[in-house]
Amino acid sequence: MGILKAQGVVYKPVDEVDLGPESDEFYIRANVKAPRMAGLFVKVFTWFLESSIFGGILLYFLKRNNLIHKLVSFAQLQESPLFVPLHPYQGIIENEVKCLEPDMSPPEKVQQAVDCLQSLEDIPKSTQLSFERWTILDYARAYTSGQTTPKMVADRFIASVHESSNRHLQMSFFINYNAEDILKQATESTARHAQGAPISILDGVPVAIKDEIDCMPYPTTGGTKWLHKVRQCKNDACCVSRLRACGAIIVGKTNMHELGAGISGINPHYGAARNPYNRSKITGGSSSGSAAVVAAGLCPVALGVDGGGSVRLPAALCGVVGLKPTFARVPHNGVLPINYTVGMVGILAATVEDALITYAAISGGLPSDHSGITMPKIGLPLLKSANYMSSDFKMAIYRKWFNDCSDDIRECCSNAVAKLSDKYGWQSVEVTIPDIEVMRLAHYLTIGSECSDSIASYLENINRAELGWDVRVGLSVYSSFHSHEYLNAQRIRKRQLQFHEKIFSVADVIVTPTVGVTAYTIEDDALKTGELDYINGAALVRYQIAGNFLGLPAVTVPVGYDRSGLPIGLQFIGKPWSESLLIHIASALQALCKSGYKKPEVFFDMLAC
Amino acid sequence: MGILKAQGVVYKPVDEVDLGPESDEFYIRANVKAPRMAGLFVKVFTWFLESSIFGGILLYFLKRNNLIHKLVSFAQLQESPLFVPLHPYQGIIENEVKCLEPDMSPPEKVQQAVDCLQSLEDIPKSTQLSFERWTILDYARAYTSGQTTPKMVADRFIASVHESSNRHLQMSFFINYNAEDILKQATESTARHAQGAPISILDGVPVAIKDEIDCMPYPTTGGTKWLHKVRQCKNDACCVSRLRACGAIIVGKTNMHELGAGISGINPHYGAARNPYNRSKITGGSSSGSAAVVAAGLCPVALGVDGGGSVRLPAALCGVVGLKPTFARVPHNGVLPINYTVGMVGILAATVEDALITYAAISGGLPSDHSGITMPKIGLPLLKSANYMSSDFKMAIYRKWFNDCSDDIRECCSNAVAKLSDKYGWQSVEVTIPDIEVMRLAHYLTIGSECSDSIASYLENINRAELGWDVRVGLSVYSSFHSHEYLNAQRIRKRQLQFHEKIFSVADVIVTPTVGVTAYTIEDDALKTGELDYINGAALVRYQIAGNFLGLPAVTVPVGYDRSGLPIGLQFIGKPWSESLLIHIASALQALCKSGYKKPEVFFDMLAC
Repeated sequence: MGILKAQGVVYKPVDEVDLGPESDEFYIRANVKAPRMAGLFVKVFTWFLESSIFGGILLYFLKRNNLIHKLVSFAQLQESPLFVPLHPYQGIIENEVKCLEPDMSPPEKVQQAVDCLQSLEDIPKSTQLSFERWTILDYARAYTSGQTTPKMVADRFIASVHESSNRHLQMSFFINYNAEDILKQATESTARHAQGAPISILDGVPVAIKDEIDCMPYPTTGGTKWLHKVRQCKNDACCVSRLRACGAIIVGKTNMHELGAGISGINPHYGAARNPYNRSKITGGSSSGSAAVVAAGLCPVALGVDGGGSVRLPAALCGVVGLKPTFARVPHNGVLPINYTVGMVGILAATVEDALITYAAISGGLPSDHSGITMPKIGLPLLKSANYMSSDFKMAIYRKWFNDCSDDIRECCSNAVAKLSDKYGWQSVEVTIPDIEVMRLAHYLTIGSECSDSIASYLENINRAELGWDVRVGLSVYSSFHSHEYLNAQRIRKRQLQFHEKIFSVADVIVTPTVGVTAYTIEDDALKTGELDYINGAALVRYQIAGNFLGLPAVTVPVGYDRSGLPIGLQFIGKPWSESLLIHIASALQALCKSGYKKPEVFFDMLAC
Repeated sequence: MGILKAQGVVYKPVDEVDLGPESDEFYIRANVKAPRMAGLFVKVFTWFLESSIFGGILLYFLKRNNLIHKLVSFAQLQESPLFVPLHPYQGIIENEVKCLEPDMSPPEKVQQAVDCLQSLEDIPKSTQLSFERWTILDYARAYTSGQTTPKMVADRFIASVHESSNRHLQMSFFINYNAEDILKQATESTARHAQGAPISILDGVPVAIKDEIDCMPYPTTGGTKWLHKVRQCKNDACCVSRLRACGAIIVGKTNMHELGAGISGINPHYGAARNPYNRSKITGGSSSGSAAVVAAGLCPVALGVDGGGSVRLPAALCGVVGLKPTFARVPHNGVLPINYTVGMVGILAATVEDALITYAAISGGLPSDHSGITMPKIGLPLLKSANYMSSDFKMAIYRKWFNDCSDDIRECCSNAVAKLSDKYGWQSVEVTIPDIEVMRLAHYLTIGSECSDSIASYLENINRAELGWDVRVGLSVYSSFHSHEYLNAQRIRKRQLQFHEKIFSVADVIVTPTVGVTAYTIEDDALKTGELDYINGAALVRYQIAGNFLGLPAVTVPVGYDRSGLPIGLQFIGKPWSESLLIHIASALQALCKSGYKKPEVFFDMLAC
């Protein structure tokens, strides 16, 4: 790291830092100095924080005690700020990849993805698996064979959402869904199938959208009670319109942590999204509903937005696949602009293959977005040729970081890595990635500042009582950051990018557990006020930040369960634009693990005969 | 602009704003609510500002009263932030331009520039001019003919600097100059000339460097008493090493406004740089010494850094040419990183032709700086073919803005534009550029935040008494900016860039006076404390900001004098990467004006026989 001075750390130049396994860089465990707060406690705390006299003093000590001053605000760095993690394309050498032409339509892209799976389709549904969710291919098969129709699925979907909301379950999957709109789409899709002319393999497949993404005919609440009143949703977001162009049925807007400003998924306005594997546990967030509906079988695919792990983290907690593409790979048009240099649309899916199909449908930057940067072509992995992965494939592991999680997660993830080595001959490379905790703080400062900026102009016109208490605390902290702190955080971004580039010169991917703890319990006092739990929060985002702050692609795959049956995920973080590789190795990992997948406690079977 | 709401303006989308002459966009005159302060007054004010109790309150009202809250902090904009004004190259069609290959050495580039002037060299020194400074070509001629030698010039230079510092003149041109180092360089150059083998036309030509740019063997003080103690200068900056490679004699580090944090050029530590046209007047700043040494004849060329007009503004006040290239055109390596998204190395020169030669020597980005952006080739205008400029050349004028200056400046600059139309047939296009004053505030917030960030980590270790009082006030204001304000300022940057792109679709350049007032008087009370004069300050930077905040190239040419004999400049602002065009039209303007150029009160003749 560097020298500790009175107020701020003086960081060593990147080239003087040893990234090998024997490096003297020390691993800082998150040392969060903030008690869990909910109920009355959080109300009193908010009152202090928002008061002009105590607020400033409290914030000063919060920032100082949590090392933000020492590690970020007053740190001394040589790096110039990196404001946007937009990566120049440097031509990754890819084997066994199908390249998409930029002018292909979404259905054409999806067809290319299906071609990558062709041999898989020929394989009959395996029977030895204890549990498997229906995939996009299953829906397509069922529609083609006439076993069911999109209209029948829509009916079943609406009934299931209704059931999930009853007093017994209270799953709080959706913020909005419109039965009439769903049935209209389903009827049109059914007619296309009846004519033998579906638009694509996605035709008639239900897809849910996080309520942070514009999607007609719904308002975009961002999990709040007010944002849609001051910001109207007038069009589908680009990613939604691409799915619609493929014939997918957009089935509604999923629940999310208010403003994406937390990761428990406990929303005091629309209810706490509940984990299908154990409904007393959180889903994680902020894409809480999107993870839960896929886990519970309502849709094979849902879209989320990942600004600080918000796709991968709930995916891991709910036992589904989560894919966060490279920054700018999916156009951001029509996504709430609350975390614009770290956030990206991501995919939650039942299987890696479904993530691939959805990725093909929605990805491809708009030429106008990033003038001057050459956007690379989208490559899709040829999953049908399963054994291309050679034994010189290398996974970087920073052992101290990898092991900084619960015992169950450590054991399960270590086993998964060992299986990969045994089965495919992949090598583990021990490395040191310095200042992981510094990156978490710098990212927090960045995402908080961006959120604060996005909504500062609205806040004057809304009643504070419309905000959850946890979000009010968050917004107070966010608006306390100074511009010089923001700029220093961007210097840390540049520094970390350089470290990661060096790691990627010795390994193909970085492998980590996806989260540090499995889903924790939803306490009663949190339901109405929301909850502040920065300690569990730090454990949940521990492995997420490089994906957001550095714009790197990452994927999480379910690899097992803890002793209480809650899902565990393993994450691969890749080089910029290496989604094709990530999907390929995620598929390889899934093949090793899927025989052990378990059925959730809450599950709805959309294709049941 | 948009709708005024309680706290912040809601800006209209760019496409709904009329940029024509009859637009209903209103022109906001700078309405600075801050009295001039110097002497005891500024000390008391600083004490209040730095106190933890009153400081916060005072800053709140300062920001609110000066419209920062309404126009920037709480404004509502649709644009995403533009953090760095790095322009993709879109292929400007250039006639009569010589393109430099990127791998040319600095001397080769300089030779190309000389070739652009060839026919000018053939023209004998005109005799009808009332006053003309010696140019680079004059030095070269004098060395080649044996009329003088670099060693003789160096001796004369050292004696002149000595004289300029005497009790009578107190010009405070330099912060550091080292006679021994100058004589060593001059002796080597003299030997090269004696052997008939000068490296380039710059061999033996004295060039001064602003003390914000690293240059051996000098410390880089940045105009402070402390920065060089905490940040060592170890190498020449890239621009300096390129000049050295051409054989130029680096004659020392010029005075500047402390930290570039002001534009009067009054430095309480190293003395107020004085205007050669009237030594009781300011030079302007922050590149105060660089403008003054060129005006006073000590060097034909000096380097400055332009973060908020800091090259063009003192150039105009001192009656010399100032060229600020496009952002990233000159590598920033070795320049104090205090204004990294708005600052650029710029050139102060006796004539446009000298600016061209120096531009050829120092420009050309390093490939490593801006990965992913294609850096355009450097084009040099063929000045020898003087009449390529066709009559369809268009100058955009925003009349209300153009006229927002002193009567003398308005008259003089209007006359210059009229002469250009008469002589060359160039057309004026009346336009409206909205929110000029908003851009000034957003730029102030940006440059202040970047300065604060750069030195925040140092400030803990220095004694505040080592800082000038004006800078202490500045730093207090700078560190008060919040990250969400910084981000909103970057949205304004994006918005303004879009406006300027539209203006450049109907005109080739924007033409303005360079400054709103001519050089004002250095008051006695300012000499020891520094001075805060935000009203004159706003008038001085009025026409500068687009060059910095949007990274556009700009050039100022002396066009006349006010009734008290103080110089007036006219400025052209160009499209990104259009330096070649700007130099060409600046040369055309200079040809019209140079017969009226006057000799300054303080002048040293380096080539006198």
